Amino acid sequence: MRAIVTGAAGFIGSNLTDRLLSDGHEVLGIDNFSTGRLDFLAKAIPCPSFELSRTDLLDLDSLKKLFVGADAVFHLAANADVRFGPEHPGRDLEQNTLCTWNVLEAMRACGVKRIAFSSTGSVYGEPAVFPTPEDAPFPIQTSLYGASKIAAESFIAAYCGAFGMRSNIFRFVSILGERYSHGHVFDFYRQLLEHPGHLRVLGDGMQRKSYLEVRDCVEAIVVAMEKSTAPVEVFNLGTNEYCTVRDSIGWICKHMGVTPEIEYTGGNRGWIGDSPFIFLDCSRIRALGWEPRYRIEQGVLNTVAYLERNQALLGARA
Amino acid sequence: MRAIVTGAAGFIGSNLTDRLLSDGHEVLGIDNFSTGRLDFLAKAIPCPSFELSRTDLLDLDSLKKLFVGADAVFHLAANADVRFGPEHPGRDLEQNTLCTWNVLEAMRACGVKRIAFSSTGSVYGEPAVFPTPEDAPFPIQTSLYGASKIAAESFIAAYCGAFGMRSNIFRFVSILGERYSHGHVFDFYRQLLEHPGHLRVLGDGMQRKSYLEVRDCVEAIVVAMEKSTAPVEVFNLGTNEYCTVRDSIGWICKHMGVTPEIEYTGGNRGWIGDSPFIFLDCSRIRALGWEPRYRIEQGVLNTVAYLERNQALLGARA
Repeated sequence: MRAIVTGAAGFIGSNLTDRLLSDGHEVLGIDNFSTGRLDFLAKAIPCPSFELSRTDLLDLDSLKKLFVGADAVFHLAANADVRFGPEHPGRDLEQNTLCTWNVLEAMRACGVKRIAFSSTGSVYGEPAVFPTPEDAPFPIQTSLYGASKIAAESFIAAYCGAFGMRSNIFRFVSILGERYSHGHVFDFYRQLLEHPGHLRVLGDGMQRKSYLEVRDCVEAIVVAMEKSTAPVEVFNLGTNEYCTVRDSIGWICKHMGVTPEIEYTGGNRGWIGDSPFIFLDCSRIRALGWEPRYRIEQGVLNTVAYLERNQALLGARA
Repeated sequence: MRAIVTGAAGFIGSNLTDRLLSDGHEVLGIDNFSTGRLDFLAKAIPCPSFELSRTDLLDLDSLKKLFVGADAVFHLAANADVRFGPEHPGRDLEQNTLCTWNVLEAMRACGVKRIAFSSTGSVYGEPAVFPTPEDAPFPIQTSLYGASKIAAESFIAAYCGAFGMRSNIFRFVSILGERYSHGHVFDFYRQLLEHPGHLRVLGDGMQRKSYLEVRDCVEAIVVAMEKSTAPVEVFNLGTNEYCTVRDSIGWICKHMGVTPEIEYTGGNRGWIGDSPFIFLDCSRIRALGWEPRYRIEQGVLNTVAYLERNQALLGARA
C-alpha cells in the first residue's frame, strides 16, 4: 500500500508512520511543522520507502499533486488542543474542518478511495450515557474543537456517499505515550520538575477521563483499516476504564518521588468545553479482535518515562 | 427587538421578515440575491422599520458593521438545495458552514447574543427511529447538505458555550407555501404545466416525506425564540404526518385536472443523499404550545395555488 500520513511529524502521526513502514508499506508523510518535530521522524527518514513533504494542508493545489497514486490517506493533522478554542476560534475551523475538506478534495481529484480520520471523543459533548457508544444520543457540541471535528467527520461521510470512498473515523480518548507533547501529563511533569513542592491543577481534580497508549491507538487504526468493510465506519478508541485527574497525579508524583502541595483552580471543568467525564464504549473496535495492551496507569508512566528521557520537549510548548 | 434576518429575500426569510415586522420588530434584512428575489420583500420594503442590505455573508468585515446594535440574528441564508451537492461540493461548505461561522464571528464582534438557525432534518441521514427525535442516535451524514448544516449547528453550539450566546436550532422538514421556489411541488407543477400528459419522478415515488407550511414554520421560530430558555436548544419542525411522493402527485394532478403518464426513474432514493423516509418527532416544539395549522395536503395545495398566481417564478430556476 502507498499510504499518505498527514501530520506525520506529530505525536500520533509519527508513531503511525513508523508502524506502517515496519509493516512494509510505502509512506508519504505530510506535515507543515507548525507543531510537528523532525526528530519524531528519526526512524522513518532513513527508510527508503518513506518520503516527507513539508506542505500545509490549506494548499489544495499541492495536495492534488502529492495524492497521485496513493491507496489510502491517514489524516491525523489537526489542531489537537481542545483548550484554546475560545482564544483562537478560527483555528479549529481552519486546521480541522477546512484542512479535512482539502484532503477530501485532493482524494477526489486523484481517485484515492480510503481515508482514516482522527476524530475525538469530544464530539460527544457532555454525554448522558456511559460508557458512551458511537451511536449515543445526538450530542450538543460544547467545544470549538469538538465542533470542528464533527464537521470534518460529517464531510468525510458525505464524500463517501457521493464519491464512492470508504472511511474509518476514530473517536479517540486522550492519547499517551512516546512523543506525547501536550496535555495533563506533560503539564504536570513540567510543573513538578520546575517546582516539586507545588502543582496547579485546572478544575477540582475529580474529572474522570479515559486514556489510551499510542501503540494501542496505532494498532487499532491498522486493525480497523484491514478488517472494516462498511463505507463509513466510526470507532471509539479507548480503554475499558477511566481514572480521575487525582489518580493520575498520584501515579506521577509517586514515580517522581515528590509530594507537592496541590492547588486546584476549582469547578468540575478544567476549561470551557472540558467534559467532566469521558469514558467510551469501545466494543465495536474490540469486536474486530483489537484490545489495548496498556492500562491507563501504565500509559501515564510510559509517558513520564519518555519525558524524562526527552526533556528538550518540555520547552517546546507554552 | 432589532432583528437581523439573513437570506431575507429568500422563501422562508421573506416570510419571517414579514412576520417580525408585523409583530412590531425592527428588521435588517441581508441577502446577496444569489437566489433571493426582491419581489418577495414587496410588503417589507415600504415598512419604515425595515432596512435591506445587499451583502454576501462571506464578507465578514461588512457583517461586523451591519450587526452593531442587533438583538438577535435569524440566520436563514443557505444553499438550500440538497440535490446538487456532488456536482458542487464546495458550495455547501461555503454557503452553509463558512457563512454561519462568519455570522457567529460578527455576533461575537458586536456582542449579539441570540441566534436562530435554519438547519434541516437531513442531518439525521437515514435514521432508524421514526418519528425521529432531536436526540436520535448519532447519525452518519449522507449528504453534503446535511454535513454542512450539522457543521454549522456544531459551531453555533460551541460559540454559545464559549461566548455566552443563546441559540435555537431548527431542523426543518421540507417547507411549502407562498414564495416556495424549488423542490418537488415546484418541479411537478412546472412539468405538468408544460406537458400535462407526462410526469418524470425521481426515484420510485414511494419515498415518504414530511412537509410543513411556511406560516407554521415561521410561527414555530417565533414561539421558540420567545419561550425557550436553554443556551442551546434544538427543535425539529414538521407536521405529525408524512406522505408518499405518489400521494403528493395525486393531490397536484387532481387540483390541476390532469392524468399524466408517470415515469419513475426508479430506486428508493431520488438522488445521492436522498433519505427515503423523513418523519420528525416534533413533541419538543409542541410542548412550547405550538402546533401546525396546515396539514401536508393543504400545504401542497397552497403551494400549487401560489405558483398558479406567480408563474413568473417558474422560469427562475433551471
